[in-house]
Amino acid sequence: MTTRAERTAKGTRSRQKLVEATGTLLRRQGFHATGLAEIVTESGAPRGSLYFYFPGGKEELACTALAESGAMWRELLIRVIDASPNLGTAVENVCRLFAEGLAASNWEHGCPLATVALEASGASPAVREVCANHFAAWEELIAARLGAVGASPEDAARFGRFALAALEGALMLAKVKQDPAPLIEAGAMLREMFERHMPVVR
Amino acid sequence: MTTRAERTAKGTRSRQKLVEATGTLLRRQGFHATGLAEIVTESGAPRGSLYFYFPGGKEELACTALAESGAMWRELLIRVIDASPNLGTAVENVCRLFAEGLAASNWEHGCPLATVALEASGASPAVREVCANHFAAWEELIAARLGAVGASPEDAARFGRFALAALEGALMLAKVKQDPAPLIEAGAMLREMFERHMPVVR
Repeated sequence: MTTRAERTAKGTRSRQKLVEATGTLLRRQGFHATGLAEIVTESGAPRGSLYFYFPGGKEELACTALAESGAMWRELLIRVIDASPNLGTAVENVCRLFAEGLAASNWEHGCPLATVALEASGASPAVREVCANHFAAWEELIAARLGAVGASPEDAARFGRFALAALEGALMLAKVKQDPAPLIEAGAMLREMFERHMPVVR
Repeated sequence: MTTRAERTAKGTRSRQKLVEATGTLLRRQGFHATGLAEIVTESGAPRGSLYFYFPGGKEELACTALAESGAMWRELLIRVIDASPNLGTAVENVCRLFAEGLAASNWEHGCPLATVALEASGASPAVREVCANHFAAWEELIAARLGAVGASPEDAARFGRFALAALEGALMLAKVKQDPAPLIEAGAMLREMFERHMPVVR
């Protein structure tokens, strides 16, 4: 017989498996192509755990998975920036890391939010809001680091937003072309831009 | 009784209606969410015309619609560039036009290729290839115009590719945030970049 604590630990693992499988499927094929049956199969979690943990069904599961992916990418950005000697190098390193991840996943693992953001934002206000909030958090992170090395609040904000736009566009183009070049090139251009406009970034 | 010429004209109209309806649906909701029944309903074309003109079904119809959208956006870029006093202003005008189109469509009409490119490129090599080819054509158009005002072939190519990445990312962010700002700002940043790096562009 299993104890209550064992059952709870097992339940938490099932919940986490469902969230991770959803994140993987959303990133690979988007919201509309991902069905609940596929999520259960991919996760290996018991079918009953789905509506127990996510009574709101696919939309609730998608919002949870997207929020988790969004937070993970924010942590990743922080780690890369902290490990780089300056922000110009950091943005190049981020682009290289994304390019390697894309190539290693057979061009499947692009931005964990972008696909869903584009195809489902019209269909689900909740999904749209989760995506918009996480994009804003990434922009603010870049802006805060630019501000910390002396950029004016206005410059920090506009460069943060522009850098995210260029990164997202380059991720999309690299995925579709199955070629790391758009990302590698965007990294070099953004570094050049940071260094030229804000010498303090060097 | 209808003549053969009338029947042919009607058939051509049906074919065109199917292609336009597919383009609209793909742009709004993507490849996976768009079914053949919905395409027929949205188009108003007779059901029988679908497999008569597109024996390859949804994939063939999608490739045709994407190729048409891609060519139309290329024409649009040419018109805006030709109507602008210089390339710096042209890139700002393109961004403003995209922002107006997005807002006027209740944030539905972003890039006609990006949504499908992200969610279907893993599922359909044919769809991926059409998208990749048209993105390349847009980049080459910008590069050719930069070359025509004196940029070196290498600079023209890298600025063309980077401008497209920034435009695509800004289009995605503007759509998801339901806010024209990412596009307006990307236009200003790209103009500044063109003018600073290539004084000849002014």
